[in-house]
Amino acid sequence: MTLTIGLDAMGGDAAPGIVVDGAVRALEQDPELRFLLFGDSSRLDPLLAPHARLREQTRIVHTPEAVAGDAKPSHALRQGRNTSMRLAVNAVKEGDAAAAVSAGNTGALMAMAKFVLKTLPGIDRPAMASVLPGKQRPVVVLDLGANVDCTSEHLFQFAVMGEVYARVMLDVAKPRVGLLNVGTEELKGDDVVRGAAALLRESVLPIDFRGFVEGTDVTEGVVDVVVTDGFTGNVALKIAEGTAAMFTSALREAFRNGGLRAKLGYLLAKPAFDTLRQRFDARRYNGAMFLGLNGVVVKSHGGTDALGFAAAIAVAANLVRNCTNQRIIEEMGASSRAEATATQAAAS
Amino acid sequence: MTLTIGLDAMGGDAAPGIVVDGAVRALEQDPELRFLLFGDSSRLDPLLAPHARLREQTRIVHTPEAVAGDAKPSHALRQGRNTSMRLAVNAVKEGDAAAAVSAGNTGALMAMAKFVLKTLPGIDRPAMASVLPGKQRPVVVLDLGANVDCTSEHLFQFAVMGEVYARVMLDVAKPRVGLLNVGTEELKGDDVVRGAAALLRESVLPIDFRGFVEGTDVTEGVVDVVVTDGFTGNVALKIAEGTAAMFTSALREAFRNGGLRAKLGYLLAKPAFDTLRQRFDARRYNGAMFLGLNGVVVKSHGGTDALGFAAAIAVAANLVRNCTNQRIIEEMGASSRAEATATQAAAS
Repeated sequence: MTLTIGLDAMGGDAAPGIVVDGAVRALEQDPELRFLLFGDSSRLDPLLAPHARLREQTRIVHTPEAVAGDAKPSHALRQGRNTSMRLAVNAVKEGDAAAAVSAGNTGALMAMAKFVLKTLPGIDRPAMASVLPGKQRPVVVLDLGANVDCTSEHLFQFAVMGEVYARVMLDVAKPRVGLLNVGTEELKGDDVVRGAAALLRESVLPIDFRGFVEGTDVTEGVVDVVVTDGFTGNVALKIAEGTAAMFTSALREAFRNGGLRAKLGYLLAKPAFDTLRQRFDARRYNGAMFLGLNGVVVKSHGGTDALGFAAAIAVAANLVRNCTNQRIIEEMGASSRAEATATQAAAS
Repeated sequence: MTLTIGLDAMGGDAAPGIVVDGAVRALEQDPELRFLLFGDSSRLDPLLAPHARLREQTRIVHTPEAVAGDAKPSHALRQGRNTSMRLAVNAVKEGDAAAAVSAGNTGALMAMAKFVLKTLPGIDRPAMASVLPGKQRPVVVLDLGANVDCTSEHLFQFAVMGEVYARVMLDVAKPRVGLLNVGTEELKGDDVVRGAAALLRESVLPIDFRGFVEGTDVTEGVVDVVVTDGFTGNVALKIAEGTAAMFTSALREAFRNGGLRAKLGYLLAKPAFDTLRQRFDARRYNGAMFLGLNGVVVKSHGGTDALGFAAAIAVAANLVRNCTNQRIIEEMGASSRAEATATQAAAS
């Protein structure tokens, strides 16, 4: 199925180069893709020149403006109406693109997406969700940083959205959902997580809620969806990244300082190392979705490369093709209807 | 210098065995240690029997009662006056032991330590601090789970205590202190972290405050002390543990499935792997201190073994020998005096 994705060509540390190269890679894997490329055409034209196929399937929409990496979201929202990021989000609203992908300023992208696309009925705040590697299989974690302050109701809504997201992204029929906490006992944590647990336990939605999970459970695969506030989720994501980077560098160091014997061992074991490196390659997990909006917007890591940006494009395409948003809307609608019925039944 | 440590012999998953074996190991490394061993003497006597030296330097204080691993802290506090844990904490209060070490129920230990020993002047709440591995060198992180809800003032106090702790434990003259947040920009985060940053910036204490740090900065060594609330700190600690465990198991798997070549490579590289394993051995980092109390109480991981328990004993001994608590008291006192002077100067 032909699918047009709007790309913010000017967002990210190495834009627009990695955006164009990412689109080239994405197209190789998914030839049905079409792109709207928003950005400075004087820089984009020469980058596209060597790629005949991409050029054919891409329309450049010129704008000289871009959102600065350190811009305040509110400022970007007010002053950035002609930026490449804003135009990419507008294209989703107007139906010109099925989804937008940006590696730019997260806060600005969130503010623009929320302002332009509005939140889904029943959702107060969008949440950033992504798939992360686990011991046995990947796990969906949200919110990864869109909302630093959350109420129990917000966490409940994240759980509902995350469950649908996991069905699409992990291809699990009945995802198990857990709330991230400092322990698994019912009394643990603060009022917000305990309140969210109560809402999930009482909910009429057919969610497989498994209660509280701890940090160690995330990679252990105790659940398929880990729900938390944006502060904790963002720290958790980056702690995991940092720990992984520390291991990789320590592994390299141990071999470098291990003399000839270690070097020979490394050469022999290289295919095994390559398997390992591939499995945990952060670029393969790149692309977080803003769940809860009337439209698909995917945030790529700002420091990623072409391979990572291509992964974020693939996430966007996958979400659109699986009608994820439509399913979240239906789920939230079913939730409100069921709760209304339950309330009526209780009242009568 | 001879030093008596009170041990809760009945706390932890494999107590009292690992407590006795941990004491044997600790004594090998630090022959000046003496122990008060609180617990069921009918179980402890036979465990001590084969260890002549430990037996000589240990006094068993019999009690048949122990705190259950899943006991509510308030219940343990009310009903557990004769438990091995409580007697170990009492020994610190009464001066019979210079420090107490327990691998038992964290919440109960915290409640008892706070009730019996009281908090230091200027400290509202004790915090759990520990040293964690980093890329270049270890880092102090607190609070690791004692306080799930924190105010800006609490985080400020944690920073002051953590700085002294780092001077002792990391042997750094001027530790750099950072507040864990979702980004490094001043506007990031919630009111609590932004308020704590303001307090640290305005403080008259000579703390080398480096502002906000992100999850990835913890292992990168951007600062020596990472300050956060107990909810985030606990999740961060366990996410790091989980990620490390995932890596180790994936590494093993990659070699196991890599055929003969990978196996040969593994054998050759084994010394390099052993170096790596040792460096990140969680047991070496075992032992978190409850900072902010009138006495040294160290919490060992409940699932640790003898090597890990010995490390927790060494942490306790190190803290006592370096007069850590005395230094925190002086620091907090200097803080109040300096702030009083500053306020007076401003008023006159």
